[in-house]
Amino acid sequence: MKYDCIIIGAGPAGVGAAIYLQRANRKICIIEKNVPGGKLNTISTIENYLGFESINGPDLALNLYKQMNKLNIELKNEEALSIEALPDKKIVKTNKGKYESDFVILATGRKIKKLHLKDEETLEGRGISYCAVCDGPLYKNKEVVVIGGGTSAVQEAIHLADFCKKVTIINKNNLFKVEHTILEKAEAKENINILYNAKIKEYKKEKDQLTHVVVTIDNKEKNIKVDGCFVFIGSEEQTKLLANLVTDEKGYILCDDRMQTSVDKIYACGDNIKKDVYQIVTAAAEGAVAALDILKRR
Amino acid sequence: MKYDCIIIGAGPAGVGAAIYLQRANRKICIIEKNVPGGKLNTISTIENYLGFESINGPDLALNLYKQMNKLNIELKNEEALSIEALPDKKIVKTNKGKYESDFVILATGRKIKKLHLKDEETLEGRGISYCAVCDGPLYKNKEVVVIGGGTSAVQEAIHLADFCKKVTIINKNNLFKVEHTILEKAEAKENINILYNAKIKEYKKEKDQLTHVVVTIDNKEKNIKVDGCFVFIGSEEQTKLLANLVTDEKGYILCDDRMQTSVDKIYACGDNIKKDVYQIVTAAAEGAVAALDILKRR
Repeated sequence: MKYDCIIIGAGPAGVGAAIYLQRANRKICIIEKNVPGGKLNTISTIENYLGFESINGPDLALNLYKQMNKLNIELKNEEALSIEALPDKKIVKTNKGKYESDFVILATGRKIKKLHLKDEETLEGRGISYCAVCDGPLYKNKEVVVIGGGTSAVQEAIHLADFCKKVTIINKNNLFKVEHTILEKAEAKENINILYNAKIKEYKKEKDQLTHVVVTIDNKEKNIKVDGCFVFIGSEEQTKLLANLVTDEKGYILCDDRMQTSVDKIYACGDNIKKDVYQIVTAAAEGAVAALDILKRR
Repeated sequence: MKYDCIIIGAGPAGVGAAIYLQRANRKICIIEKNVPGGKLNTISTIENYLGFESINGPDLALNLYKQMNKLNIELKNEEALSIEALPDKKIVKTNKGKYESDFVILATGRKIKKLHLKDEETLEGRGISYCAVCDGPLYKNKEVVVIGGGTSAVQEAIHLADFCKKVTIINKNNLFKVEHTILEKAEAKENINILYNAKIKEYKKEKDQLTHVVVTIDNKEKNIKVDGCFVFIGSEEQTKLLANLVTDEKGYILCDDRMQTSVDKIYACGDNIKKDVYQIVTAAAEGAVAALDILKRR
């Protein structure tokens, strides 16, 4: 048996695509090694997904799972290991089997780099965040730190400075890897404070809520009182499921505006592609665009 | 008082943008002449918006309204009449006032052309539809007609033929305005039947559900039993709110991948722009992309 399309990843992008393919009567399946919902399962409060005043990530993940079941979308709880792109078909190998398909959609997400400090995971959504656009507004008029020395760190600090009382950027080096104009913008903000050569050492909590970060500067320890801590130290490279897939230097997949990658009939959408906006709603929309393009090609 | 951004239209695109701007503390308002939710208010069942197994359009519209209120987004129930783009600001004139803003987002939607036959509006969502991707799956294994003689009509008929029992295209002319390869695809489908020189004359209903369409071919009347009728006879030109806005020949606004139009600091998103996919989720995502680009520019 050959599938019309195999989707790898059951987050907003993968499920977003599956909805459109399944409703059009295509033979499809989603391969997901973890629980459905992808990154949603790690988000506490979502206030910026159209249609919900406010919803917990795991609740939205459950909605996705219910929607998949309602539409009878086949879900394989397996780990995709490799994809072989042959002229007439794609072969997806997992830890449990081998499946053939005309099309493949890569909706594998990305792994945010973490500091691997004590209590980091416990404090996610309780003071620690990896997305200023998503979670920043929860810290209106409060004091936050931003950890990182690249473009994202500086840009997100500028974003936060518009509504947070005070934003302290903690850069472990003595300069930023960022365009000068962007850094100038940050330096011009009165409520942005920059610490150079500062290394984060420890998180302090009270009742499972982040209260302080401890940094070392020139071997001196500094205890900073914070309401929130935003970590932007990059994302880890994508799992390489197939050779010949063109990515940028960080491993993000390049695709055109129909979500077609450099390998014919292999599409990508969501957080694993190179783009400007990494949001739930954009991932879902990209899934829809990929699916509708595949539907047109047969 | 000057707004940071004025959004025209409170459908998925406009509200999708407003969520991101308001959460980032920008001074914004939405101008909407009708009730919030836009096109959602005319859709019966929505099964392809990620996060909802199934929801009525007006219910999703109400969710949008609640989300706007929760975030304290200012809504002006006024009709936008014109936009003036000056070097330092935009001026939006409505039937009730005149407002200044740095940015404007056009989320004005589109008007689908209708046949203006008796009972047409009553039967919308009860047999009559204007979107095969959205509503087609509700007619799985059923008999439908497609009305139109252009590319959309033929493409949507091909899409429907994948899961409907029988698809009859009703073309009032003796040829289609469509690429030959697309027409060939339709002709190759065994369950697609084409009627040329056929003009739709009447809808017949039973208990407020469409049951037949009456067409005239060579002055002879033909009564076709149908479960669904999909109308693709084009969309009406957008209201021209400002001169110098580059559109395609049908009036759809051209914009780049950040949703910036040909006029600086005027963005567009949703059903009023030229693109491939006209779905709720894509409109909402475009709103987010426009908003986040505006946030970066200040």
